[in-house]
Amino acid sequence: MRAVDIIIKKRDKQELTSQEIEFFIKGFTNGEIPDYQAAAFAMAVILNGMTPFETADLTLAMARSGQVLDLSKVVDIAVDKHSSGGVGDKTSISVMPMVAACGLPVGKMSGRGLGFSGGTLDKLESVPGYRVDLSTDEFKQQLKEKGIVLTGQSLDLAPADGKMYALRDVTGTVPSMPLIASSIMSKKIAAGAQAIVLDVKTGLGAFMETLEEARVLADLMVDIGRLAGRKTVALLSDMNQPLGSAVGNSLEMIEAIELLRGRAPHDYYEHCLHVAAHVLVLGQRAKDLDEGRAMAQKCIDDGSALEKLRVLVQAQGGDASYVDDVSRFEWAKYVEAVKSPRSGFISQVHARIVGEASVTLGAGRAKKGDPIDHAVGFLIHKKVGDKVEAGETLFEIHANDEKKLAEARTNVLSAYQFSDEFVPPLPLFYE
Amino acid sequence: MRAVDIIIKKRDKQELTSQEIEFFIKGFTNGEIPDYQAAAFAMAVILNGMTPFETADLTLAMARSGQVLDLSKVVDIAVDKHSSGGVGDKTSISVMPMVAACGLPVGKMSGRGLGFSGGTLDKLESVPGYRVDLSTDEFKQQLKEKGIVLTGQSLDLAPADGKMYALRDVTGTVPSMPLIASSIMSKKIAAGAQAIVLDVKTGLGAFMETLEEARVLADLMVDIGRLAGRKTVALLSDMNQPLGSAVGNSLEMIEAIELLRGRAPHDYYEHCLHVAAHVLVLGQRAKDLDEGRAMAQKCIDDGSALEKLRVLVQAQGGDASYVDDVSRFEWAKYVEAVKSPRSGFISQVHARIVGEASVTLGAGRAKKGDPIDHAVGFLIHKKVGDKVEAGETLFEIHANDEKKLAEARTNVLSAYQFSDEFVPPLPLFYE
Repeated sequence: MRAVDIIIKKRDKQELTSQEIEFFIKGFTNGEIPDYQAAAFAMAVILNGMTPFETADLTLAMARSGQVLDLSKVVDIAVDKHSSGGVGDKTSISVMPMVAACGLPVGKMSGRGLGFSGGTLDKLESVPGYRVDLSTDEFKQQLKEKGIVLTGQSLDLAPADGKMYALRDVTGTVPSMPLIASSIMSKKIAAGAQAIVLDVKTGLGAFMETLEEARVLADLMVDIGRLAGRKTVALLSDMNQPLGSAVGNSLEMIEAIELLRGRAPHDYYEHCLHVAAHVLVLGQRAKDLDEGRAMAQKCIDDGSALEKLRVLVQAQGGDASYVDDVSRFEWAKYVEAVKSPRSGFISQVHARIVGEASVTLGAGRAKKGDPIDHAVGFLIHKKVGDKVEAGETLFEIHANDEKKLAEARTNVLSAYQFSDEFVPPLPLFYE
Repeated sequence: MRAVDIIIKKRDKQELTSQEIEFFIKGFTNGEIPDYQAAAFAMAVILNGMTPFETADLTLAMARSGQVLDLSKVVDIAVDKHSSGGVGDKTSISVMPMVAACGLPVGKMSGRGLGFSGGTLDKLESVPGYRVDLSTDEFKQQLKEKGIVLTGQSLDLAPADGKMYALRDVTGTVPSMPLIASSIMSKKIAAGAQAIVLDVKTGLGAFMETLEEARVLADLMVDIGRLAGRKTVALLSDMNQPLGSAVGNSLEMIEAIELLRGRAPHDYYEHCLHVAAHVLVLGQRAKDLDEGRAMAQKCIDDGSALEKLRVLVQAQGGDASYVDDVSRFEWAKYVEAVKSPRSGFISQVHARIVGEASVTLGAGRAKKGDPIDHAVGFLIHKKVGDKVEAGETLFEIHANDEKKLAEARTNVLSAYQFSDEFVPPLPLFYE
């Protein structure tokens, strides 16, 4: 078998066998197949596509390129919840303690933010001391003992994916359904969860801008999960405007904590209950979504979800007093309430523009490895469907630099669109 | 400007500007743009194509990636003749002395054989001492003093092409019209000829198997030549069966020399006169093809073309006595005449099968850098349209190894197809 023949086969729109895909990924991982062959392969895949079977083979080959965790010896069932990324999406931080409090072990390896899209690890690190670099042994032990883990991607899981992703970034081969789906799913499969809930975002602030694209990606990932023997469901949720109110690391962390006290913007609260219900059903703790939802609500009401978050923070070295007193989080130097320039109904709060504005403010990264400022961000008070009067506060800016504050004000104002007519709120979920 | 954005533009089927192409090729040549980006780019080009303008820009960028010879200060007009490669194609070795003898300076840089396709340099090197590594200064001086040069590609001409070709070979990005055309033409343009005659082969033993493909390639190269300010014409000629009789280095060299004595298989003789006539018209030595043909014929008849070959061989350090006495060429140990298994008309002598059989015999290379045996090869006596009786000689094998001889016999016999009905001979030229 030769790498060039596999590239030629894909170039000529033929379907690759499992053996060919395994050979290519194995060779790429151990360096026998050079980057230039993988780059030509990725471009052929992006332009000629892959069948669901090829995509599943690619996913499994990448998952097997390193260690594959077996969590079945650790807990009876471990679930993972993955979001395809967006603006203001702190769902995992609220949902994981909720389901863990319901007795379902949750183990998740998460990523950092890049570009307009925030990252769960960055949000968690607003709590001083919180470690995101657990070893796989620590991961397993904490999952067994505490029933909840939220850490960074271990380096020895799916190394082919990391290598391929870095290459795709510089060769114009990022936006390909099979490559995106296999990248996400290879990490999930290697991380060992037996059940996976995928929250696929669609809209102006998502990687999949149209519902149709998001549905294709969701279906593909569910197929891959099932072919890999993992119970998998996908939700399609809105990301035209930021989720909830907070955008920015500390601010989002606070919003996620407050939700566990029963205080959160309506859309974010509803979103979390719905996701939690799905996780509980898939994890066989609830017989249907209604029961799952009631269980999740109860864990908020009786404080057991908040207690689980305290346990998680403490277990990973974080200062749990932040969970009990959110005023301890680092605050930005300047806080400005930005007023509405007109009266009317809000018809758009462009999520990507808000996400990019948060990068400019210092809350996110333009490129990998950039430092971030945990304190800065926005509180989006008025959202699509809301009625506002001129002079009413639209959003708050939390900034550490006056020039950046001014820039952010202009940018986020440009994310808003108004209408004289009534505008219905955006749906939270599409399917 | 960033390389990745240029790749993305081509991936998304947009037309690249001259500046973008120049930036990419310059960066690739000096190593600032890594191989993996060039590989992704080449795959995007092969799958999405290039416009003739982009192709011309690519060609000029590759030509300018190194030294571009200016021959206008050396001779009033220098012509180059290029064949797209085939089996038994020794045309340059006969035609160049013919036109040089008619007073038209010819300077050509040629290549080595690879796979089923033979190379002019390998054929010339059957003459002991013949140098194919002239420097560009030697090239210019010999062109000026002798009016004829036939050497290898200088390393400092179009280095981007050499680098790109090596990469294409291992990334499945060889068969792309824009990449093939720009590769050929960048070398021709850098080598400085003001007039270029392209002999584009089509058929079973050519890189372009169909006439349509060959015509597209020919048109593209003529357009590029004209956009680069070079007088360019292209001929479309047959390569379904080997050209002439000889296949193999010494054997072809002998056939090329014998032609200059007026003795050659009819198809090869006609082919050479036709090509020479075109070269003489393009080089403004003949007013039309009839006159060009008559001039070329006269140079054969009066021995001046043979004398020019002597001059060429001598100038490049070769033993000119080989030109006068072809029995001096190294002969193979075994010569076998293979008889026809049946009577009838020959309907096919598959050129690629014969070419590949010559590689097996040792006359060619499976991969770059392989050693070759100059003495071995075939003399194809019966060709398409010929009537044969069972037991009549079809072809001769010249071999240095009995096992390879047996293999070659089977292979070349399989290249033959017979018909009971009359079969017309193949045309020499299509356009």
